[in-house]
Amino acid sequence: MGFELESASPAGVRCVELAEKHAAEFAATAERYDRENSFPYPHWSQMQRSGLLAAMVPTELGGLGVTAVRDIVVAVNRLARGDGAIAIGTAMHLTSFWYFAQLFAAPPPSADGPAFTARLRLLLRRCARGHVVCCVAISEHNTPLGRPNTAAEPVAGGYRVSGRKAFCTNSPVATLFLSLVRIDGVEGRRRLGFAVIPRETAGLTVVDNWDALGMRGSGSGEVTFDACRLPLEMVVPTGEVGELPAGVLPLVMVAVTALSGAFLGIAEQAQSLVTAALARRHATGPAVRTLVGDNEIDLTVSRAVVDRVATLLDAALRPATGLTDDELPGLMAEVQCANMAVKRAAIAVVDRALTASGGSGYLSANPLSRLYRDVRAGPFMQPFSALQAAEYIGRVRLGLTDPEMTPSASIPR
Amino acid sequence: MGFELESASPAGVRCVELAEKHAAEFAATAERYDRENSFPYPHWSQMQRSGLLAAMVPTELGGLGVTAVRDIVVAVNRLARGDGAIAIGTAMHLTSFWYFAQLFAAPPPSADGPAFTARLRLLLRRCARGHVVCCVAISEHNTPLGRPNTAAEPVAGGYRVSGRKAFCTNSPVATLFLSLVRIDGVEGRRRLGFAVIPRETAGLTVVDNWDALGMRGSGSGEVTFDACRLPLEMVVPTGEVGELPAGVLPLVMVAVTALSGAFLGIAEQAQSLVTAALARRHATGPAVRTLVGDNEIDLTVSRAVVDRVATLLDAALRPATGLTDDELPGLMAEVQCANMAVKRAAIAVVDRALTASGGSGYLSANPLSRLYRDVRAGPFMQPFSALQAAEYIGRVRLGLTDPEMTPSASIPR
Amino acid sequence: MGFELESASPAGVRCVELAEKHAAEFAATAERYDRENSFPYPHWSQMQRSGLLAAMVPTELGGLGVTAVRDIVVAVNRLARGDGAIAIGTAMHLTSFWYFAQLFAAPPPSADGPAFTARLRLLLRRCARGHVVCCVAISEHNTPLGRPNTAAEPVAGGYRVSGRKAFCTNSPVATLFLSLVRIDGVEGRRRLGFAVIPRETAGLTVVDNWDALGMRGSGSGEVTFDACRLPLEMVVPTGEVGELPAGVLPLVMVAVTALSGAFLGIAEQAQSLVTAALARRHATGPAVRTLVGDNEIDLTVSRAVVDRVATLLDAALRPATGLTDDELPGLMAEVQCANMAVKRAAIAVVDRALTASGGSGYLSANPLSRLYRDVRAGPFMQPFSALQAAEYIGRVRLGLTDPEMTPSASIPR
Amino acid sequence: MGFELESASPAGVRCVELAEKHAAEFAATAERYDRENSFPYPHWSQMQRSGLLAAMVPTELGGLGVTAVRDIVVAVNRLARGDGAIAIGTAMHLTSFWYFAQLFAAPPPSADGPAFTARLRLLLRRCARGHVVCCVAISEHNTPLGRPNTAAEPVAGGYRVSGRKAFCTNSPVATLFLSLVRIDGVEGRRRLGFAVIPRETAGLTVVDNWDALGMRGSGSGEVTFDACRLPLEMVVPTGEVGELPAGVLPLVMVAVTALSGAFLGIAEQAQSLVTAALARRHATGPAVRTLVGDNEIDLTVSRAVVDRVATLLDAALRPATGLTDDELPGLMAEVQCANMAVKRAAIAVVDRALTASGGSGYLSANPLSRLYRDVRAGPFMQPFSALQAAEYIGRVRLGLTDPEMTPSASIPR
Repeated sequence: MGFELESASPAGVRCVELAEKHAAEFAATAERYDRENSFPYPHWSQMQRSGLLAAMVPTELGGLGVTAVRDIVVAVNRLARGDGAIAIGTAMHLTSFWYFAQLFAAPPPSADGPAFTARLRLLLRRCARGHVVCCVAISEHNTPLGRPNTAAEPVAGGYRVSGRKAFCTNSPVATLFLSLVRIDGVEGRRRLGFAVIPRETAGLTVVDNWDALGMRGSGSGEVTFDACRLPLEMVVPTGEVGELPAGVLPLVMVAVTALSGAFLGIAEQAQSLVTAALARRHATGPAVRTLVGDNEIDLTVSRAVVDRVATLLDAALRPATGLTDDELPGLMAEVQCANMAVKRAAIAVVDRALTASGGSGYLSANPLSRLYRDVRAGPFMQPFSALQAAEYIGRVRLGLTDPEMTPSASIPR
Repeated sequence: MGFELESASPAGVRCVELAEKHAAEFAATAERYDRENSFPYPHWSQMQRSGLLAAMVPTELGGLGVTAVRDIVVAVNRLARGDGAIAIGTAMHLTSFWYFAQLFAAPPPSADGPAFTARLRLLLRRCARGHVVCCVAISEHNTPLGRPNTAAEPVAGGYRVSGRKAFCTNSPVATLFLSLVRIDGVEGRRRLGFAVIPRETAGLTVVDNWDALGMRGSGSGEVTFDACRLPLEMVVPTGEVGELPAGVLPLVMVAVTALSGAFLGIAEQAQSLVTAALARRHATGPAVRTLVGDNEIDLTVSRAVVDRVATLLDAALRPATGLTDDELPGLMAEVQCANMAVKRAAIAVVDRALTASGGSGYLSANPLSRLYRDVRAGPFMQPFSALQAAEYIGRVRLGLTDPEMTPSASIPR
Repeated sequence: MGFELESASPAGVRCVELAEKHAAEFAATAERYDRENSFPYPHWSQMQRSGLLAAMVPTELGGLGVTAVRDIVVAVNRLARGDGAIAIGTAMHLTSFWYFAQLFAAPPPSADGPAFTARLRLLLRRCARGHVVCCVAISEHNTPLGRPNTAAEPVAGGYRVSGRKAFCTNSPVATLFLSLVRIDGVEGRRRLGFAVIPRETAGLTVVDNWDALGMRGSGSGEVTFDACRLPLEMVVPTGEVGELPAGVLPLVMVAVTALSGAFLGIAEQAQSLVTAALARRHATGPAVRTLVGDNEIDLTVSRAVVDRVATLLDAALRPATGLTDDELPGLMAEVQCANMAVKRAAIAVVDRALTASGGSGYLSANPLSRLYRDVRAGPFMQPFSALQAAEYIGRVRLGLTDPEMTPSASIPR
Repeated sequence: MGFELESASPAGVRCVELAEKHAAEFAATAERYDRENSFPYPHWSQMQRSGLLAAMVPTELGGLGVTAVRDIVVAVNRLARGDGAIAIGTAMHLTSFWYFAQLFAAPPPSADGPAFTARLRLLLRRCARGHVVCCVAISEHNTPLGRPNTAAEPVAGGYRVSGRKAFCTNSPVATLFLSLVRIDGVEGRRRLGFAVIPRETAGLTVVDNWDALGMRGSGSGEVTFDACRLPLEMVVPTGEVGELPAGVLPLVMVAVTALSGAFLGIAEQAQSLVTAALARRHATGPAVRTLVGDNEIDLTVSRAVVDRVATLLDAALRPATGLTDDELPGLMAEVQCANMAVKRAAIAVVDRALTASGGSGYLSANPLSRLYRDVRAGPFMQPFSALQAAEYIGRVRLGLTDPEMTPSASIPR
């Protein structure tokens, strides 16, 4: 695979090496966790021990010191070749710490100065010691992303949070939950808020009820908050209900791009598996060769667009850059373009690999049958599913704004 | 579903009513058999008792007296709305008995007259009493359909058959196996042969090892023949090795068309499920409505093409028709056109239903997640998989003949 | 082309024979009219003389006595193999006379009895003598079909009609224009109306300004009405502004289906041309054969769906049938399914033929380069273009009604 | 268009500015040259005068000093937004001079030293003075690229070349023709050769007979050689007949990538036209917005893959790089991946723009109707058309070599 994505920084190279080492091990057990629909706890422990989960922590605090989005993408890409379910979980965790590390490097003016930095330093250090896994718990059944039913009610010294989140990838092993809540303010005024909720908070329950077509080892079940008490600083108002807030967009864009790397990795793995199988036969026909070629076309463009968008993000989202609000929609649309393109291409690649396998890929013993299920998760993901992404992008291109056009996380049961 | 396929004959109407009644029951357990990867023995007993499996047996011998291919297709279509795995098994069984009933009605000149008819009468009667299930055991791993490794060696009074067949849908419950064998004749001359092998034959083993992405309740595992002794009349030479023999083509065309009905039924079921779910919500967006509309387009054309081809087959394959060898390739190509069109469309329909479900379809609890796996089996099927069908059809259209162009059942492991 | 659409009635067979004879002649000049962007007047005269344009006139009034929609479809299908532009014009004319012949056979209760029938008899007789060509002038730039700007103002003894219609296929040769108008009634109340306007009406101008990518010989330019005076009986109120009226729907469904036959014919012609060219070469590769095979798949399903829907319409639209208003949307959706499927498939078929031609099809001298342009007209057509069809169908499937959802003829300039 | 391709070098920026200026002028006349099927001589004179055609000439010899493939791609991309036909011609010319400038900077060991360099210096200087336009005349009707019928027969002091080339873009204005010939050597041995033939050579005729579906102003007609006498140094043996020679591959890869830039430009122009038209309306529906969004997705990935491959080529093809023969197939396959992806995407983008135009794009007065025809030329182009590209790429991926697998330029008439 001569043209695969490569890391450009020394810290990134180290991170990618770790990811490749893990991926080789994870590949051996992916089928089992899938079959048993169980969570790969041992592998998360391995990633804690190896330091991969502390990739974004500055070296002086004990981490790998990775700073580039592009490096996250490449590492997640490698993990996904071994186990897609672990890769998407790692993507969410690393993205969260990309965000924390950015806040640590350049605290926002609104932050409470030294206390803010001290809290982050502690969090980063704990991560470096292998004690933190982040879970992004923002989706809900039957509500759009910007209109959560999960409510944060102001109480003395903080908030009381209640609600139910879905598709909480990583939740079985997570120690910290990043969530979107509706802050019910004075006089009925409601705002959107970003909450950080430790697992040990009373009232938090990891339901651990994930059972799906694919990504079965990802632990993407529900998490419930039953009157969870949070201190004031753990719930940050971010904007109006119904809108995707500018403050959260960078986090969203990085997460989406990291996930693109995962789906690219799944597709690359399918192509590797089927070409290896074909090479073991003495002859291939033109139909099979054409499928392999069309897969290469899709992989080449997917790598290119992930590469370009990750590079764009690293240029645009440096703390010093100061991306204006005007530029955000265009960048977000560009990220979504890459995201949809890669996820569509990845599904097509695995499907062609299945066809090229001549039937053997349909058997459970063949990993392609798992990849076929895993890769289909892509277009459902937040903030723009296949039902919304193209129209959202078209709106941005046409310069249309619509306060009601908010990314939907509505997953009806 | 106002424009669904309907039976036109009284016997067919009765048969379809039975299929609809069964489908309603099978739907309730399809998820369980899928999850447990077990075979739905009780449902096959129910179909024995109801008389559905004797649909093709003349009424005077105790059956429903269905004669039309089109009626098989409609019945299988209805079964598939309940359980696709049972539907494809039933398609294979009913197709086999369509063939036996045709031979009974108009014995070929080569048959041994009264003895031939007597054997068939006995078989048909036994079927009417619920004692026969046919399994079409023609595929093998790593050989094309026309070049089986399963060998029939002439011995005193008959043949000794040895080999291993794969993708033997129904095999756990089957009592009679229809197979393709290589007859190893005198002086090394080899011919292709059609063998009928009772389950009680010594040396026959139903391996029952089916474990696949979908169609998990279809029992499509391996069957092995270890020096099975067969009387002379149970192995019929049909033509040259490497060629799809004209005598077997009608059977193949009917089977393919019956299977098309099954995949159409799966797609119809997916559309029904998702539109019912959408109707329960208070609002749908244009993207969802467009997906539902595109599904209707695919369903409408699929019904039309199945209908047209089934009607064509009924006109062409009546015992009295005398289809010439010149006309066979064109008809076979037309059948393959319908087959590929329906299977491609069915996959697209289920995929759109999944997208329109907004994520809930990805959960194991939602039947769409099973339909997504079941429907993908279609393009692997015999005799022309997705790798060969279009080129085969193109060859026929261009008037090209190629003795080496034989449908491949090669399913590499 | 062994499985092509055939007429089933003696009158239809005669009509199709005429169409095939014309098509052979039209094929020879199609390139010239396309290149010169001129209207094929001589061919319309030929169709007048041969009696093809009087196909729908009862035999006792001098016509061919064709009554079946299916026969129109097959005849138009054959014409389109020679010249698609003439075929779509003929489709509009024959559809109009299908409607007139139905009214003649079973006058609506609201009609003014003997006078109504006498007017229709005269019209049918004039058609039989080769004096009538109908043009359906219902589209406008920038308005939806149900909200025309063309206004019929009540005046003494009738109406005064003013407005501008676009995409008026046939208009250079037409003698009678069927149009949709907005009737400006008393007290500002507006209704939708169906107007029949003779060419000799003062104020009517055939602008003859058609110049497009394809269908260049179809004369589909603008027609303007400048205070055209019409007697009362030539403008029939049909329903509310903004809705597609039930009374006009049968006409629409027949027209759409006839046009499907035309686009199928264009696709069949492309396939014939490219397979003939390939047969002249000594060898074809698998890629080319696969394209030819995929074309056959699309042609087979297109024939099947046109066949099924035309048969459905003939059953549903017999004067005696009495289709209920409840059944209309479902039937209309089914017609639209067939329509979109055939038009999409036809575009795909011509595109593959172009690819299979290896480059020669891109040259102007090769008819494929014209078919590539002609066939692209399909999805723009009324009443549901590619922008609306799938969502409309989805709405009907979901049982949604929306008074604002009206087929759009909006063709912005 | 915030994320468009940009040049990274000062020389490139200057070149792209010139291209943008030209494009604005060319856009105004593109429709006329298309309609009249005539060659835009004035625009080629403008490009001579502006210095754009001397972009690749070193500054010390009077040119712009552009050296990067990426800069060619961006300049051609901009030209194509104005006139695609001129853009593909300019791509062929600039690619030729990229090759000459590379040979001048680092003469191959086999070259005849100072004389070789002196000839190239003269050529580059003549180009800088606006006296040279190159035409790549390598395709023929009915032969694959590696097996030309055009023959170079050794004669005293050189060769005598005879044959007929097709698809010679630029030929009306070209002064130098780069061609592939079959060198008929001693004892019947034949080799493939690369010939450079000045227009003034006796026997050379520019037939100027281009008349095609699109790219009508590109002058891509035939050129005939009737016993053209060439000195020895103008015909270079490159390898075996039937193989794509390693020495010519870099030239091919750069040309293909430059052409990708042109098709991307056509697609960008279609998107710009339709979004501008939509912005002039007061409302757009979700279907239109979704089409615009899907176009953005295709444009984003196309830009990314062109960018990545152009950057790869600049790294791999520097004179000093010394790409090994082992690495060539992989790089060639990667270039072909980008090429097919961009050309397919460009066709899809223009098609969606046409649909989104609501019918107005189908009128000749709307530039979209020209872009629809122009963009379809892409997949026919050398060395791998849509019929061969995917299978070629698949072969490389599978490590298969096939001496008979040679890119085909066979354009049957």
